[in-house]
Amino acid sequence: MNRVGHPYRSHTCGALSKANEGETVRLSGWVHRKRDHGGVLFVDLRDHYGITQVVADADSAALPLLESVRVESVVTINGTVKARGAGTVNPNLPTGAIEVFAREAEVLSRAEELPMPVAGEQDYPEDIRLRYRFLDLRRETLHANIVKRTKVISDMRRRMEAAGFTEYSTPILTASSPEGARDFLVPSRIHAGKFYALPQAPQQYKQLLMVAGFDRYFQIAPCFRDEDPRADRLPGEFYQLDLEMSFVTQEEIWETMEPVIGGVFEAFADGKKVTPSGSFPRIPYSESMLKYGSDKPDLRNPLIISDVSAHFTQSGFGLFEKIVGSGGVVRAIPAPATADKSRKFFDDMNDWARSEGHAGLGYVTRKGGEFGGPIAKNHGAEGMEKLYAELGLGADDGLFFAAGKEGQAAKLAGAARTRVGEQLGLIDQDRFELCWIVDFPFYEWDEDNKKVEFSHNPFSMPQGGMEALQTQDPLTINAYQYDLVCNGFEIASGSIRNQDPATMVKAFEIVGLSQADVEERFGGLYRAFQYGAPPHGGMAAGVDRVVMLICGAQNLREITLFPMNQRAEDLLMGAPSPAEPKQLRELHMRVVEPPKG
Amino acid sequence: MNRVGHPYRSHTCGALSKANEGETVRLSGWVHRKRDHGGVLFVDLRDHYGITQVVADADSAALPLLESVRVESVVTINGTVKARGAGTVNPNLPTGAIEVFAREAEVLSRAEELPMPVAGEQDYPEDIRLRYRFLDLRRETLHANIVKRTKVISDMRRRMEAAGFTEYSTPILTASSPEGARDFLVPSRIHAGKFYALPQAPQQYKQLLMVAGFDRYFQIAPCFRDEDPRADRLPGEFYQLDLEMSFVTQEEIWETMEPVIGGVFEAFADGKKVTPSGSFPRIPYSESMLKYGSDKPDLRNPLIISDVSAHFTQSGFGLFEKIVGSGGVVRAIPAPATADKSRKFFDDMNDWARSEGHAGLGYVTRKGGEFGGPIAKNHGAEGMEKLYAELGLGADDGLFFAAGKEGQAAKLAGAARTRVGEQLGLIDQDRFELCWIVDFPFYEWDEDNKKVEFSHNPFSMPQGGMEALQTQDPLTINAYQYDLVCNGFEIASGSIRNQDPATMVKAFEIVGLSQADVEERFGGLYRAFQYGAPPHGGMAAGVDRVVMLICGAQNLREITLFPMNQRAEDLLMGAPSPAEPKQLRELHMRVVEPPKG
Repeated sequence: MNRVGHPYRSHTCGALSKANEGETVRLSGWVHRKRDHGGVLFVDLRDHYGITQVVADADSAALPLLESVRVESVVTINGTVKARGAGTVNPNLPTGAIEVFAREAEVLSRAEELPMPVAGEQDYPEDIRLRYRFLDLRRETLHANIVKRTKVISDMRRRMEAAGFTEYSTPILTASSPEGARDFLVPSRIHAGKFYALPQAPQQYKQLLMVAGFDRYFQIAPCFRDEDPRADRLPGEFYQLDLEMSFVTQEEIWETMEPVIGGVFEAFADGKKVTPSGSFPRIPYSESMLKYGSDKPDLRNPLIISDVSAHFTQSGFGLFEKIVGSGGVVRAIPAPATADKSRKFFDDMNDWARSEGHAGLGYVTRKGGEFGGPIAKNHGAEGMEKLYAELGLGADDGLFFAAGKEGQAAKLAGAARTRVGEQLGLIDQDRFELCWIVDFPFYEWDEDNKKVEFSHNPFSMPQGGMEALQTQDPLTINAYQYDLVCNGFEIASGSIRNQDPATMVKAFEIVGLSQADVEERFGGLYRAFQYGAPPHGGMAAGVDRVVMLICGAQNLREITLFPMNQRAEDLLMGAPSPAEPKQLRELHMRVVEPPKG
Repeated sequence: MNRVGHPYRSHTCGALSKANEGETVRLSGWVHRKRDHGGVLFVDLRDHYGITQVVADADSAALPLLESVRVESVVTINGTVKARGAGTVNPNLPTGAIEVFAREAEVLSRAEELPMPVAGEQDYPEDIRLRYRFLDLRRETLHANIVKRTKVISDMRRRMEAAGFTEYSTPILTASSPEGARDFLVPSRIHAGKFYALPQAPQQYKQLLMVAGFDRYFQIAPCFRDEDPRADRLPGEFYQLDLEMSFVTQEEIWETMEPVIGGVFEAFADGKKVTPSGSFPRIPYSESMLKYGSDKPDLRNPLIISDVSAHFTQSGFGLFEKIVGSGGVVRAIPAPATADKSRKFFDDMNDWARSEGHAGLGYVTRKGGEFGGPIAKNHGAEGMEKLYAELGLGADDGLFFAAGKEGQAAKLAGAARTRVGEQLGLIDQDRFELCWIVDFPFYEWDEDNKKVEFSHNPFSMPQGGMEALQTQDPLTINAYQYDLVCNGFEIASGSIRNQDPATMVKAFEIVGLSQADVEERFGGLYRAFQYGAPPHGGMAAGVDRVVMLICGAQNLREITLFPMNQRAEDLLMGAPSPAEPKQLRELHMRVVEPPKG
């Protein structure tokens, strides 16, 4: 960009280099920093594109004005590009080889005293940052994160289109959905006492698109859930990369989406290693619960959990024998190369497990082949040797044990695996490890109500279809349902849908619900399936989570443009706010004040 | 796509050609049409990508099944590709050179009897079409319109990114905006008696993005207005191509956006002529009102209105003399080459004007140089000759007159220009004529309240800035405000914004509002302008309108995926609907039933 005669800029603040030496230029931007070196004023002038150093001395007509303005004021500079002296070149700045000698300056917008600093990255209270988000967004890291977010989303779109998908926008004012979370409601003015709901996800619409014959749908979809604040979800709205395909198997969905999601990670990985597309591991849910103690395994962690219950059916260590004897399990988590770790390392781990509400985390230490700790002592060296041989562990490897009912033991083992991996520094921070978790159980046993319930999504197709529903123990039926996991976070979830009305009715019957329940929960969809519905399936990926992983951000607010605070307030715009009485009248609503406490 | 062993399809229904002759293929799709030619069954099998003719005869195991299924059932066909005989090739179908001889067929989803037909394009009642939208969307024209819509939007995105813009999503749960239309409100669960609003437009957020230093923003933005139904606006939501630029003049915005909007039209014009980018006419508002009687001129219409008041200051035609004498105007609309038109043509036009509430539309006829009609007779041939010479009209051209107060006369002249152009067949349907309407007045006289009011947008920068506000008659001040018009429709609107707090306060003072009013109406924005705001401006284009023009659709529902009906109901999903008492309690709301009529 070099525009002669433009009233604001011939170049952006990121454009000038030594090639421009001697040119007369015009720059506009914010006064980022000012440094007065005894009569010579240095101004870092900043815009979206970069920072350029501007200089004014006593010979410059611009000096008084630049001296007078506060940082963050917006100014236009007319000046001349000069090469910096060898000693003052800044190699970290794209424009660091030059500076602009200011001949004239004009203030476009004067800044008041700032409620928070822009230059520098010091921490600042959350409420100030949100109230003055327009200043916060000028700061280097947040500005860069937001730009990266937009680039990630644009890249997703490009890849989806290249894969033959078409983006369709589905309605935002719609009906309550059966997803289970709480809806945001929008009162209707025309229909007294009736409400629209904001979509928790475009699930039903995207399936209707398949029934309407559109074949490959995607959408960067705004979704809304009125949930209580959680660390990993901002109040209000969030974005999904939502997609659906017709005439498709789950394998085809995985093959189609690996280059998209893997490709996005690769494009923005900044040198980090990414699981290659086409080779994302596909781990059955049951295997994942065993080996990683989680359905969201962090595969950067090399530790693998093993079931070692068989070793303790008869053991000198009575506690494990008792647990296994009463139907429980013992899971082992290796702690490799811990010969030099103190007893305290192992005891602390046990204390941590107790503090998390578990009975405790047993352990065996080993140094130069010598076992240590009460379990080894009671179980005996011979048994331990056998166990170690089976697990492929060596002479200096320790071992932790999580024992109890299967679900609890698996959960503890998973948490211990993560903690051991972290404490031993085994987790490679410079990798994105992606995998599919597949074959989720369709049903589960609801202990509270002593009945069979859907595990996750009643929309999914049970593996084996109608025949399985009619002939198998429901608790042995898996669904065509899958998650995509990265570094221990679920980043996407999907399934092949049940598009057959009869199978749907049967699936609901098993959890004690009627055809009427199907019709109520599936709404327009169940009706649509009566008129020719293709087999279809898809998934939804959490855009915010993917961006957080890519940016290495710890908090959703660091990758979100105008987030609400944890009290679901927009401090910048002042939302929510009271309505006018006229508005409430038009909406046929009255506010019911909660009882004063 | 050719996937051996895929359970549903080796090819789509749009893929096969003579090159595939002899191949064994698998197709899946909807049974579009069935024709039984005495023991030979022809099935048009349809999917998103096309239609393929499938044949089954007595030798085919698929025959009984294909005979038994209803149209719109979903089936899979295994068969062999055969070349059609020369006489039966269908050149209108991409797959028209082949047919697939079915060896086996499987029903994937059986269709019940249809509530409306899919094949063919016959009209069908609106409420059935909306209730069974998934069937309606299978129909050829609507399906194609929706696909074209998605392509237009994708093309817009691509062009915006190529022009250096970045897409940012702004919040959907936000505060009431000062746009003036009615907001949709969303009750807050956490804050009793308070409400979010859905954005009427992201106006404040996009300006905050500029203040935050993001430079070039765009968004395909969902917007929400709770307005009563209008022919040209669906209830609820609509989409804008919204954009904003910093350090920019209005000329730069026009130069930047002509290749984007013009380019989109060109890409989808289907051979229609489009005003070339870089040469969109820029017509001042006052000129447009004079020459076209409208600020949304249809430039496909070659007729130009002229002010001919000066000819009637002294005239034998007393009515015009009286009108001009009392400050009114006479506007002339040519009716070229109307020598052969009957008296009835002219009288009907006058009747039409009266039926529209005007006093009437005067006229002069001319044939071979001979004037006709009462105005010519009273005004005299000499005066008419002079008038015709000035307007450059010929010996066989007629002329209509709209007389009265300036605003009324301009409006009538504009409507007459359109009607004359249509009736004389002067409007070239195969063109997209784009132009900018610029220099809108900043203020106008509010006759009802006898005071100066903002004409359009108080956010806009007045031309001349603070100095103009301090020294000029407000009614002579124009704004840096502009519309983009295509074929008589406003397709975009924008302005350079007023980002200077002092100028803003002064602009409001002139319409009798205080600094407190500014702070209330500009909310977070006014506060943001205190901390360094760049000059900025932008515009918003109506995506729906652009798509309608491109598709040649007459109704927004013909280019919208899941529209609501005119009563703001989603008949497919059943929205709006009553809320659960628990939901209302959580939202601190009570429904106030309207009084029964």
